[in-house]
Amino acid sequence: MNTASDAPHRRPDGRLYDGLILGASLATLDCADGYGEIADAALAWRDGRIAWLGPRADLPGAPADLAETVIQAQGWITPGLIDCHTHLVFAGDRAREFELRLKGASYEEIARAGGGIVSSVRATRAADEAELLRQSLPRARALLGDGATSLEIKSGYGLDFDNERKMLRVARQVGDALGVQVRTTYLGAHALPPEYQGRADDYIDAVCEWMPRLHSEGLIDAVDAFCEGIGFSPPQTRRVFETARALGLPVKLHADQLSDLGGGALAAAFDGLSADHVEHTSLDSVKAMAAHGTVAVLLPGAFHVLRETKLPPLDAFREHGVAMAVATDCNPGTSPLLSLRQAMQLSCTHFRLTPEEALRGATVHAARALGLSDAGVLRVGARADFVQWDIGHPSELCYWLGGRLARRVVSAGRVLVDQTDR
Amino acid sequence: MNTASDAPHRRPDGRLYDGLILGASLATLDCADGYGEIADAALAWRDGRIAWLGPRADLPGAPADLAETVIQAQGWITPGLIDCHTHLVFAGDRAREFELRLKGASYEEIARAGGGIVSSVRATRAADEAELLRQSLPRARALLGDGATSLEIKSGYGLDFDNERKMLRVARQVGDALGVQVRTTYLGAHALPPEYQGRADDYIDAVCEWMPRLHSEGLIDAVDAFCEGIGFSPPQTRRVFETARALGLPVKLHADQLSDLGGGALAAAFDGLSADHVEHTSLDSVKAMAAHGTVAVLLPGAFHVLRETKLPPLDAFREHGVAMAVATDCNPGTSPLLSLRQAMQLSCTHFRLTPEEALRGATVHAARALGLSDAGVLRVGARADFVQWDIGHPSELCYWLGGRLARRVVSAGRVLVDQTDR
Ligand SMILES: [Zn+2]
Ligand SMILES: [Zn+2]
Repeated sequence: MNTASDAPHRRPDGRLYDGLILGASLATLDCADGYGEIADAALAWRDGRIAWLGPRADLPGAPADLAETVIQAQGWITPGLIDCHTHLVFAGDRAREFELRLKGASYEEIARAGGGIVSSVRATRAADEAELLRQSLPRARALLGDGATSLEIKSGYGLDFDNERKMLRVARQVGDALGVQVRTTYLGAHALPPEYQGRADDYIDAVCEWMPRLHSEGLIDAVDAFCEGIGFSPPQTRRVFETARALGLPVKLHADQLSDLGGGALAAAFDGLSADHVEHTSLDSVKAMAAHGTVAVLLPGAFHVLRETKLPPLDAFREHGVAMAVATDCNPGTSPLLSLRQAMQLSCTHFRLTPEEALRGATVHAARALGLSDAGVLRVGARADFVQWDIGHPSELCYWLGGRLARRVVSAGRVLVDQTDR
Repeated sequence: MNTASDAPHRRPDGRLYDGLILGASLATLDCADGYGEIADAALAWRDGRIAWLGPRADLPGAPADLAETVIQAQGWITPGLIDCHTHLVFAGDRAREFELRLKGASYEEIARAGGGIVSSVRATRAADEAELLRQSLPRARALLGDGATSLEIKSGYGLDFDNERKMLRVARQVGDALGVQVRTTYLGAHALPPEYQGRADDYIDAVCEWMPRLHSEGLIDAVDAFCEGIGFSPPQTRRVFETARALGLPVKLHADQLSDLGGGALAAAFDGLSADHVEHTSLDSVKAMAAHGTVAVLLPGAFHVLRETKLPPLDAFREHGVAMAVATDCNPGTSPLLSLRQAMQLSCTHFRLTPEEALRGATVHAARALGLSDAGVLRVGARADFVQWDIGHPSELCYWLGGRLARRVVSAGRVLVDQTDR
């Protein structure tokens, strides 16, 4: 594990590595249990990938001879966090609606005041690409600042071809602008747009018709749907998934959040990457997910904001070996969450995950939920995505609420955040 | 309200003001209801105090002629937040204990592993002043970075004269180091130290004996106690309060968190500044608090972490006109909370406070809970403590979880945080 399998070839300056960070403890997570701790460690990268890691004492030479950039560190280094479920591209916000609700307004009054998802659709449609990017970047920057180096971003507030396309293009631009890895998910089947009221099947036709066109522009990494009484039915979801399968696109699903529609099993039947929310998922679905390697993505932000009480079947997931991921679900309606560490904290408080499960959920298992084989773990050959934290133990990542613990955030060997001024 | 009552005297350079910030909306909170909004406003300060505020169009001259420093702003400006209940000076942390608990360890196992408050006492006693300051500063900096310009800091992990003194001295040093306003609270009656097991009354004697000595060094702004079945009894609390009263020191109380011991009424009987936690406070106590102007300090962080379900008597507080403050309770055991905005969010989610109540709770009412008459509001003559936020409406302060919304944080006219790089 300590050295690359290929014989190392040197850089033009004779050095083996582009960068090297020394002195922190590593939580590699490259193990079945525990944090995979390496104390007083060194980690080197080359061409954006991890090239060496191990105890500092085992380094094959003097640091300055080995790497162009040498960083002296302390605290802990974990894999870069992976936020595998976000809706962070949107325009406007719904803080006023949040306030109205707390003042006791009914859903009808909120709808009359222009609230609800339709207000996000309206604002997102009205913004041009530049404006949508301008409004979305601070959210992505906040997630990055708290340690996320990979973000999934869904469409689903456009709900017509041009606006879904605009959202997916902006999602790609977020990645380019910040240097983080972005995976796009096409969520045309998020809600029924006003112009299709009473014609949900026609809308699903349109969603399926847009899919190959958006895919041909390279805008889709995965396909998602909102399968729920207030969303789309299992047969409608199935049509979306069949279209995705025909295009070779992986699927994931907003499943069983408010009721059990068998969403977990439906996602599994299509070898889905993940079933997300899953509060009401049945044991049959759990078994199907286990059989197909479908990850359970826990979204404690929405659970918290909506004050839900029905817990996901956590023990069944554990018992049957379903990997559990944790994500922010960053969205303007039910989870205005700008920190994945915060989601990890909420997963411990509300779902009683252990800090180790929460950290795996935001790294190793989140990578699986996005089909990423080279992220979420510190291992030679993986992307050099990592975070240096000002902490004495990894459990602190789930313990503190708020604050800034990330000292350095590195994506593909590039230092994107360097907070040495605190 | 727009001009100082005294005739303005000019600075040596002929200007009226040291600083001026322009263009944001103000939430002055200088009103009985609502945010006290002034759109497209200007706010000027001189000698650390607000000297003028109002619509920008009403400014009595050209900005550059009026002030040495002119800041162009947008978003909203609120009073600097006031965290009126923290235990942020301590050594060590209890993240491992948090982890053990989530792994199912019993209290006995945690105690055997060295957990519980006694571990914080041990670590705090072992740290010298410089080390205690070094460990505490990042927490204070995190609170400041999220908008808090005034902090209350309690002793209570020393539990002997020298170590209580050390904690209070470090609390003062936090204020000096960061330029924020710190109010110290002597909480000798926080827990029974190991060396006094079985001799709680003797320990209370000692707490009372130390009080005048610490007060003579200028280390005490208020006196607090933990009145609870697992803390100190009402008669013991009363003795602490009588000693405080004899010294002219105001009191506050950890009251009725886990059971109703009449703590609210006890604090009120001593004209207490506040009764804090108050989940189990009775209607009689509510009425007594109303009659004596005792503030109810809500601490949703501990409620969240401990997964409590008993809500404070919020409607009774509202009905009887008891002011409600909101604070972090930042402490290593039950509320590892590094953001007052986060506490505001939790107060909305768990206690259904409106965002306006939460903001008043962290400004106007928090000031009352500390006996500060010149903070927590934007008003001519008040301290020039304010925050410029990157938001479109004050309700966003309670809506977003995580992230960094504070663009500039200003204490007594000094810009302490300036995040223009995001
Ligand atoms: Zn979602
Ligand atoms: Zn407390």
